[in-house]
Amino acid sequence: MNRAVAVEGCAELAAELRQARAGVTDTRASLAAVGRVYTAFARRRPALYDAMFTHIVPLPFATPEAPAALREAFGELLSAVEPLAAEGEEPGLLTETYWASLHGLVTLMRSGRLPERAHEHRLELLIAHFTAGEK
Amino acid sequence: MNRAVAVEGCAELAAELRQARAGVTDTRASLAAVGRVYTAFARRRPALYDAMFTHIVPLPFATPEAPAALREAFGELLSAVEPLAAEGEEPGLLTETYWASLHGLVTLMRSGRLPERAHEHRLELLIAHFTAGEK
Repeated sequence: MNRAVAVEGCAELAAELRQARAGVTDTRASLAAVGRVYTAFARRRPALYDAMFTHIVPLPFATPEAPAALREAFGELLSAVEPLAAEGEEPGLLTETYWASLHGLVTLMRSGRLPERAHEHRLELLIAHFTAGEK
Repeated sequence: MNRAVAVEGCAELAAELRQARAGVTDTRASLAAVGRVYTAFARRRPALYDAMFTHIVPLPFATPEAPAALREAFGELLSAVEPLAAEGEEPGLLTETYWASLHGLVTLMRSGRLPERAHEHRLELLIAHFTAGEK
């Protein structure tokens, strides 16, 4: 049951991320667009978000056997992050790192460790530093 | 009770972070040192880590009223992150952003969404991108 909810949630998130990237060609703007949509999704649907990424579920994440919806959601993040990978950096691992940063921002707000009010500002800083080395 | 555990955990983490930074003057090395020690602490002591940063506890985080141990742990991260703040960037918010990235890395490993084996590599990528704009 939780497995089905997690997969369905990933499909919804993938669709929102895809829409966020549509027509955005600038790398920094694309990274910002997926970052905003991802964190907004997590804040708007906390129970679904936990089923997707916090609760233990029997799903093979980060493998070729992952359900299509999981690979699609990750693929949308990957498309935004990939142009930022420097020579020798593995785009998949860089995407996981950006994903983890977004996840940390939303979960620390949820647990009351980070004030909600500065969220947009933190997201801007994350993106500024992630893209700082870009040519 | 949980409150006392969280405060004690922050005191222990602060001491470990302080030791990690001792004698390290290079900015990137300092950021890497606190990143490694922070994530190692979270992985080694998952229940304590959850009491500190995941479970809801009646503690005033991110305010001047926070217990000294919380401010000390945050202060150690701040000392490592502060040199990276660009003109106009608020060091405290940048520190919260780096903290969130570390938190996301450890919690997504805990929930099985990110494979443990690439942790060191992800941490390197995070630090490389956080410091990329540095002069």
